[in-house]
Amino acid sequence: MSSIYGKLFSVSTWGESHGEAVGAVIDGCPAGIPLDAAEIQAAMDRRRPGQNALVTPRNEADSVRILSGVFEGKTTGTPICLAVWNQNQHSGDYSEMANWYRPGHADLTYDLKYGFRDYRGGGRASARETLARVAAGAVANKILKTACGTEILSWVESVGEVDSHVDFSQVTAEAIEASPVRCPDPEASAKMEARIREAKLAKDSVGAVLALEIRKPPVALGEPVFDKVQAVLAGAMLSIPAVKGFEIGEGFRAARMKGSEHNDTIRFENGKFHTLTNHAGGVLGGITNGETIRCRLAFKPTATILQPQETAGRDKQNGVLSARGRHDPCVAIRAPVIVESMAAIALVNLYLEQKARC
Amino acid sequence: MSSIYGKLFSVSTWGESHGEAVGAVIDGCPAGIPLDAAEIQAAMDRRRPGQNALVTPRNEADSVRILSGVFEGKTTGTPICLAVWNQNQHSGDYSEMANWYRPGHADLTYDLKYGFRDYRGGGRASARETLARVAAGAVANKILKTACGTEILSWVESVGEVDSHVDFSQVTAEAIEASPVRCPDPEASAKMEARIREAKLAKDSVGAVLALEIRKPPVALGEPVFDKVQAVLAGAMLSIPAVKGFEIGEGFRAARMKGSEHNDTIRFENGKFHTLTNHAGGVLGGITNGETIRCRLAFKPTATILQPQETAGRDKQNGVLSARGRHDPCVAIRAPVIVESMAAIALVNLYLEQKARC
Amino acid sequence: MSSIYGKLFSVSTWGESHGEAVGAVIDGCPAGIPLDAAEIQAAMDRRRPGQNALVTPRNEADSVRILSGVFEGKTTGTPICLAVWNQNQHSGDYSEMANWYRPGHADLTYDLKYGFRDYRGGGRASARETLARVAAGAVANKILKTACGTEILSWVESVGEVDSHVDFSQVTAEAIEASPVRCPDPEASAKMEARIREAKLAKDSVGAVLALEIRKPPVALGEPVFDKVQAVLAGAMLSIPAVKGFEIGEGFRAARMKGSEHNDTIRFENGKFHTLTNHAGGVLGGITNGETIRCRLAFKPTATILQPQETAGRDKQNGVLSARGRHDPCVAIRAPVIVESMAAIALVNLYLEQKARC
Amino acid sequence: MSSIYGKLFSVSTWGESHGEAVGAVIDGCPAGIPLDAAEIQAAMDRRRPGQNALVTPRNEADSVRILSGVFEGKTTGTPICLAVWNQNQHSGDYSEMANWYRPGHADLTYDLKYGFRDYRGGGRASARETLARVAAGAVANKILKTACGTEILSWVESVGEVDSHVDFSQVTAEAIEASPVRCPDPEASAKMEARIREAKLAKDSVGAVLALEIRKPPVALGEPVFDKVQAVLAGAMLSIPAVKGFEIGEGFRAARMKGSEHNDTIRFENGKFHTLTNHAGGVLGGITNGETIRCRLAFKPTATILQPQETAGRDKQNGVLSARGRHDPCVAIRAPVIVESMAAIALVNLYLEQKARC
Repeated sequence: MSSIYGKLFSVSTWGESHGEAVGAVIDGCPAGIPLDAAEIQAAMDRRRPGQNALVTPRNEADSVRILSGVFEGKTTGTPICLAVWNQNQHSGDYSEMANWYRPGHADLTYDLKYGFRDYRGGGRASARETLARVAAGAVANKILKTACGTEILSWVESVGEVDSHVDFSQVTAEAIEASPVRCPDPEASAKMEARIREAKLAKDSVGAVLALEIRKPPVALGEPVFDKVQAVLAGAMLSIPAVKGFEIGEGFRAARMKGSEHNDTIRFENGKFHTLTNHAGGVLGGITNGETIRCRLAFKPTATILQPQETAGRDKQNGVLSARGRHDPCVAIRAPVIVESMAAIALVNLYLEQKARC
Repeated sequence: MSSIYGKLFSVSTWGESHGEAVGAVIDGCPAGIPLDAAEIQAAMDRRRPGQNALVTPRNEADSVRILSGVFEGKTTGTPICLAVWNQNQHSGDYSEMANWYRPGHADLTYDLKYGFRDYRGGGRASARETLARVAAGAVANKILKTACGTEILSWVESVGEVDSHVDFSQVTAEAIEASPVRCPDPEASAKMEARIREAKLAKDSVGAVLALEIRKPPVALGEPVFDKVQAVLAGAMLSIPAVKGFEIGEGFRAARMKGSEHNDTIRFENGKFHTLTNHAGGVLGGITNGETIRCRLAFKPTATILQPQETAGRDKQNGVLSARGRHDPCVAIRAPVIVESMAAIALVNLYLEQKARC
Repeated sequence: MSSIYGKLFSVSTWGESHGEAVGAVIDGCPAGIPLDAAEIQAAMDRRRPGQNALVTPRNEADSVRILSGVFEGKTTGTPICLAVWNQNQHSGDYSEMANWYRPGHADLTYDLKYGFRDYRGGGRASARETLARVAAGAVANKILKTACGTEILSWVESVGEVDSHVDFSQVTAEAIEASPVRCPDPEASAKMEARIREAKLAKDSVGAVLALEIRKPPVALGEPVFDKVQAVLAGAMLSIPAVKGFEIGEGFRAARMKGSEHNDTIRFENGKFHTLTNHAGGVLGGITNGETIRCRLAFKPTATILQPQETAGRDKQNGVLSARGRHDPCVAIRAPVIVESMAAIALVNLYLEQKARC
Repeated sequence: MSSIYGKLFSVSTWGESHGEAVGAVIDGCPAGIPLDAAEIQAAMDRRRPGQNALVTPRNEADSVRILSGVFEGKTTGTPICLAVWNQNQHSGDYSEMANWYRPGHADLTYDLKYGFRDYRGGGRASARETLARVAAGAVANKILKTACGTEILSWVESVGEVDSHVDFSQVTAEAIEASPVRCPDPEASAKMEARIREAKLAKDSVGAVLALEIRKPPVALGEPVFDKVQAVLAGAMLSIPAVKGFEIGEGFRAARMKGSEHNDTIRFENGKFHTLTNHAGGVLGGITNGETIRCRLAFKPTATILQPQETAGRDKQNGVLSARGRHDPCVAIRAPVIVESMAAIALVNLYLEQKARC
């Protein structure tokens, strides 16, 4: 299933960047959860282009509408259809790209797979598809927060070669949102901003690393063998456009550690088991142990750059493409809310599955 | 589904390390594919403990039996049940661990989830479960090789701080198998071997990085949005015990690159589209472009070490566990065939899905 | 998954009878299939209330809109979102039923399951939900017709005790549509019409039997064991509101036959295998043999009747409900297009699955 | 998925009638349920050929072995592999049928689908496959009985034209098992026995109707729209070999009833809602209301008959097949335990799904 995610809390996203609308249908949301459009809208607004000077504004309100599944302010247990109308469907800006396959984009592979070229700007491969995930993620987040007090946070850890330095456990949602680049280290945030402006001037783009932290996750989540928590999270994260790498706990650093360093000591204290360190990143054998889940994600630099690039076209000619128009040199700074959303959707599926068999 | 993987080529694995047998049922294998037990056995032998001096031998032949789904040397289209009998079920060695939760192992989390402690050595979380994946992977590999000429290779790239240096595109299956640590760089292989012996002497363990290369993958595989090739591969890879990180293409290096560096130039030549470089690692927009798929995986150090370790037990006491018995200081050197198997199973699912809609 | 049907051609329906809209998202539709809204509209119009004097008009155009997945007149391979806006959302007529659980309706069971009472007229259990299935079924039908020349027909075989007599293989879509009760036997059609008017006068309702015939089905469809053609069709048919029985081939008549009567003689003639009779109804061992698939469906009488009925309410009181408003004494006469749609959706899933493994 | 049933309690069956073994893997069984092989064996013994003079003995003990998923007498939450070894694999008796497609059997359609002819007696289409369902069903039954006190009963209602007359609610498991034909009406049982002997003498076979009754089902089971209880049950039932029809509640009789007759009056009494009659058969809107679920199933006459039959063969010749060997003129009398098993497996899936969202 290309566009349906999840077995018990299924999210089916639909819509092209230049079609009438984009949206999601959530099937399997428990009944009785208080939900209003404003909560979902708040999440949407966090990813909206144009929220600051670093991203090219696309003048769309991106107002979400709840078309079904909510009655008198509560979920009904039936499918929730969320939709956002596209107000900016003119595709004139893209016309000159109608033939060329943009390097780093999905144009060539979509054409190989489906036999057509939607020159209007990415279609399903557009970042606009992620709007639907954010809408659905807001619902998933609400479930986890209400039922377990789970808090899911994602932020920008590095942009290009600019690193940040924060105490992970002290990072707050407010500190993240206060930064135009979604980095809770103010000093690094300023440098990242400068780095992105520089890329913009150079008509180039730059990659980034995002952190993901899931605090107070439900305990004992994860299905052994194939649906380990880390497997499910990795699958969810790599489904986000531009993500090229995933780590949980120490990630690639673990490969250079010794067992005596990496193993977390288990201690029974204050009525529960916990670990003194958290190299594992909150999972053992694919199942949550109750410690914070810690992940990192690598985002490649935005594929769209405004420098001329060699490429080939539908007509099997090689040539040079000079892209124009919108240019977000670091789309990753809009991604924290997408990362949080996919994490919430992934976890809520494991959470419901765990409840089924208790 | 905890132990079932895949929608069209479903692999359902079963069996505990100290039960009667472990195995896999493959549902959805196309009919008419020549298959005999010897081919599967060859793959199994590549992961078998005891294949060299670096791993503690567990004296089991690990002979696979095909219980169903093959008739007169060909698959019949019906479920293929593959089973390996455990010949070493005595659990005496583990008795003293019956109470303690081993650090770095799934003991605690399984108990939190299922309410019991299988002290016999890992149960489903044992590396022995991966036998079933290798058996199923051999069938998946056969399908891809026969239909598309696809070659899937995995090898050890680093052990602890010991790195190897090879031209990826020149690595052969023979060079990998010739190395006792599954590293095709002979010089690095010797150093890795020494490093592992050192860890063994120190009663410690060491992590590793594995490379995964998929040559001549089917073109246009991958379902946009949630079942992107990289999402499916990441999910499959992180389901392998001890894997803590995944990269495709440049992975985390991409996060420090510029778009003008990372974008691969598309060229039409010799009747087909290809890219001059392969920073993307063979996928664009989640769909294969025909270039080699390149991934890297981080393995944490083996959780079992023979040093005394502080931990807690079922009885809610804290104490010290001194493990004895088998000690593989770097299980990752047995993992390349597991990585290849999971990659094959993941890809064959996408391959069948692609065929469905052509 | 409550509201998602199908593995490879997934139809996710959403929307309540008195919400903003109802619709369906199709995930997995092959690319390149010519499709326009008019084709889908034609199917919708066949089920629309108000198409004749026998059903109470609900004045809604039920115009379908394609929100995604179609570009320049062809499917793109990405999700197709189809939506129909509700123009008649005022729920005043239902207010007096807000407490009572209507006998024969889902009011009580929805409340038991979800803990709320949507008094506005059925919510998801409304016949209006089937609009979404018809929209999706039109797409499925197009695929089967284009690829295999398959023709799917359903008609009303009996209404209450009024039976029809037709030569099944001679029934045409035109003859069905020509009848206001969707019965291709003109004499029986007139009697059925009279029977329904009589029920209306009596403020009562009446059941019906529908026939389903699938001509030139793809050969070798159906997955042995659990996804036999008859199992998949039965599941699809019993998911239609008011259906209480399903037969394939001789159905219950087979239970009174001898093997020597029921077995269909196989003959090789004109370059292919066929059977001289078709007691089996087109399937053997759950797989299509190429003969016409023949099924029958029992519809219970419409639950809504305008006579006073004893029942209980949310407040745990017993009392009498006098329903008012719309009254369709035989909803089954609107069901043939729904039956055809579900059959098409079910078959197209098996068809794509069959293609995957060829 | 051809041979995997269920989303949360997945049963994957494998094995051919003349292969090494047949079995099932259950994935998703909750942990901590007491289970021993004897309980499963008891169910198996109920369907075993040779249990009385009416069926041809196949001398196999059909002893089930639990290969995984049970530890110290309880389920562990990990996959349960159940296997039965075939002791009777010689296929000599079938050799003369190697070319002919047996009328009423799956030989032709399997060959059309998979391109081979397993002349050894049915392969996956053999009744022997149902052994695996019965083994898995015993586990499902245990879960429902333990958690909800649910009792699932199936019996033979008619054989050919011989009908039985019982008060459904008074039927007991003991009365069913006491009858060699599994009919709790002693007088009818004797007549059915005679009818089957007559068919045997005539080298012919005869069909049957089975009743299915589910008492004290969990309340509020069933997912609206596509996974209605009746849809799930119908799909499960029609997956049983030889089943050609399914009814719930009044079934086809409902088609001749008036709404005022069919609607069940709801009453609040003794602290709960119930209905005065049960025409609906325990479901409203696809969701259980707590009343007994009542279904009926039509079984076609056994396809294997010992009279000469015209048919065609693999070599595209038409001719006459004279079958020899085992001859069960009414396989349906062995089916009640299969029907109960599939009902239990179907319901336990809905039960776990319901728990997930509470």
